[in-house]
Amino acid sequence: MNFIQKLQNASRENSSFLCVGLDPDPHLMPVNTTINEFILQIVEATNDLVCAYKINFAFFEAMGEAGFSHLNFARTCIPEKIPVIADAKRADIGNTSRAYAEAVFEVLNFDAITVNPYMGFDSLQPFISYTDRGVFILCRTSNPGAGDFQDLPVTSNGETLPLYRQVSRKAKNWNQYGNIGLVVGATWPEEIKEIREENPDMPLLVPGVGTQGGSVDLVSRYAIGPEGKMAIINSSRSIIHASFESNFGNLARAKAEELRSQINLYRQK
Amino acid sequence: MNFIQKLQNASRENSSFLCVGLDPDPHLMPVNTTINEFILQIVEATNDLVCAYKINFAFFEAMGEAGFSHLNFARTCIPEKIPVIADAKRADIGNTSRAYAEAVFEVLNFDAITVNPYMGFDSLQPFISYTDRGVFILCRTSNPGAGDFQDLPVTSNGETLPLYRQVSRKAKNWNQYGNIGLVVGATWPEEIKEIREENPDMPLLVPGVGTQGGSVDLVSRYAIGPEGKMAIINSSRSIIHASFESNFGNLARAKAEELRSQINLYRQK
Repeated sequence: MNFIQKLQNASRENSSFLCVGLDPDPHLMPVNTTINEFILQIVEATNDLVCAYKINFAFFEAMGEAGFSHLNFARTCIPEKIPVIADAKRADIGNTSRAYAEAVFEVLNFDAITVNPYMGFDSLQPFISYTDRGVFILCRTSNPGAGDFQDLPVTSNGETLPLYRQVSRKAKNWNQYGNIGLVVGATWPEEIKEIREENPDMPLLVPGVGTQGGSVDLVSRYAIGPEGKMAIINSSRSIIHASFESNFGNLARAKAEELRSQINLYRQK
Repeated sequence: MNFIQKLQNASRENSSFLCVGLDPDPHLMPVNTTINEFILQIVEATNDLVCAYKINFAFFEAMGEAGFSHLNFARTCIPEKIPVIADAKRADIGNTSRAYAEAVFEVLNFDAITVNPYMGFDSLQPFISYTDRGVFILCRTSNPGAGDFQDLPVTSNGETLPLYRQVSRKAKNWNQYGNIGLVVGATWPEEIKEIREENPDMPLLVPGVGTQGGSVDLVSRYAIGPEGKMAIINSSRSIIHASFESNFGNLARAKAEELRSQINLYRQK
């Protein structure tokens, strides 16, 4: 079963377009809880509410030597039927991207990865060539400075469009195996609308609701819509770090349920 | 002592603009040699010939659980006076980039890092704010597909230039602490010339001589020139994997000496 099928199945089974970001912040941990206990409890409390999990490598790398085993634990404690996205934003020259792809898809066995398009197609090809995995290309990111380059007008094939739109077009051309998706920040709903119109069937990974302030209403309406197009709406901190208390699992579940319902409600408007 | 001073001192002491890339490829290892023995022997054989070492994280991540300790070993077996660049090509939203910066600059204590500009200034700021470390922003990369986006004409402040030139300009504006450099591939000498003219004092990190085929002559002339401007010319595979035999250290030394001499010869033309 490839990534897209696994994603669709999980989404259908859990009636969910919600992705929970498993990004444990050591400064926000509940009292008397180890990293692995924390991750396991969050996964146990939320795995029937999500279409996917996303794990950002940065927080594990900051843990030093212990980081790899926590990352591997997080990956393996997630039930097999739920796809897991490596939010690693990698890309390098060919033989180096091959090593990154090996690390993420073979050593750690993630179902999908986020990648950065700046270096061009040959830097992404080693990831895309794993045709049973998903590759989410950064398009319009959720951060305040996203527009520094992504919004600049760029001319390609005689047409001038913002850089993120050129990335969205190239992604469409590169999608020969049907395993490419795009990352579009929830903080930019108008851009999500444009990108969805241009790529009606591509899965969109949408971070930035919750702490970053993206509107669930507009994101659900534009990225998923009444047809239920595949979008993966991620929230990390506002779910997993909802509480410092020992009942953090229950709180995370309540937050995840609330967001799942909001998404499902708004997308039908 | 900050990164730039450390780099200049090492360059002066070793009369060198050569950087050796410590990117061990498990498929190309000499017989009966462990990864750590390999790295140690390469460093012992070359540390009086280089201005810096560069370590690409991909190859260590592909080693799985053992990767971190090999990476840490590689970092720590390099003499204190030689700066070490983490070739990690990171960047993410603010709090995530902070975690990456912590991993690279605090946990592993690297002197500099390579970063990807696509997400804009706030994704790089957490790295730049370590003012005693160096931050090399990808500008014109060495891979064949570099031009897919980097060469497209982009308009900013009323001026239309290829994307990599807009990155070069922004990098100049962002360089308030004097710790920013640019990555320009040796495979594009004309682009190096332009970037050097625009940024006469910025250190350039130039991968792509050796296996990737960049011209040492043109790179030395344009990036360093007779004034000896600071450029870090990196070669990885053609030095460290010059031999499968037990004398690989000697071979690596010979290759490094040859390249250092070539660089020093050509830059004076």
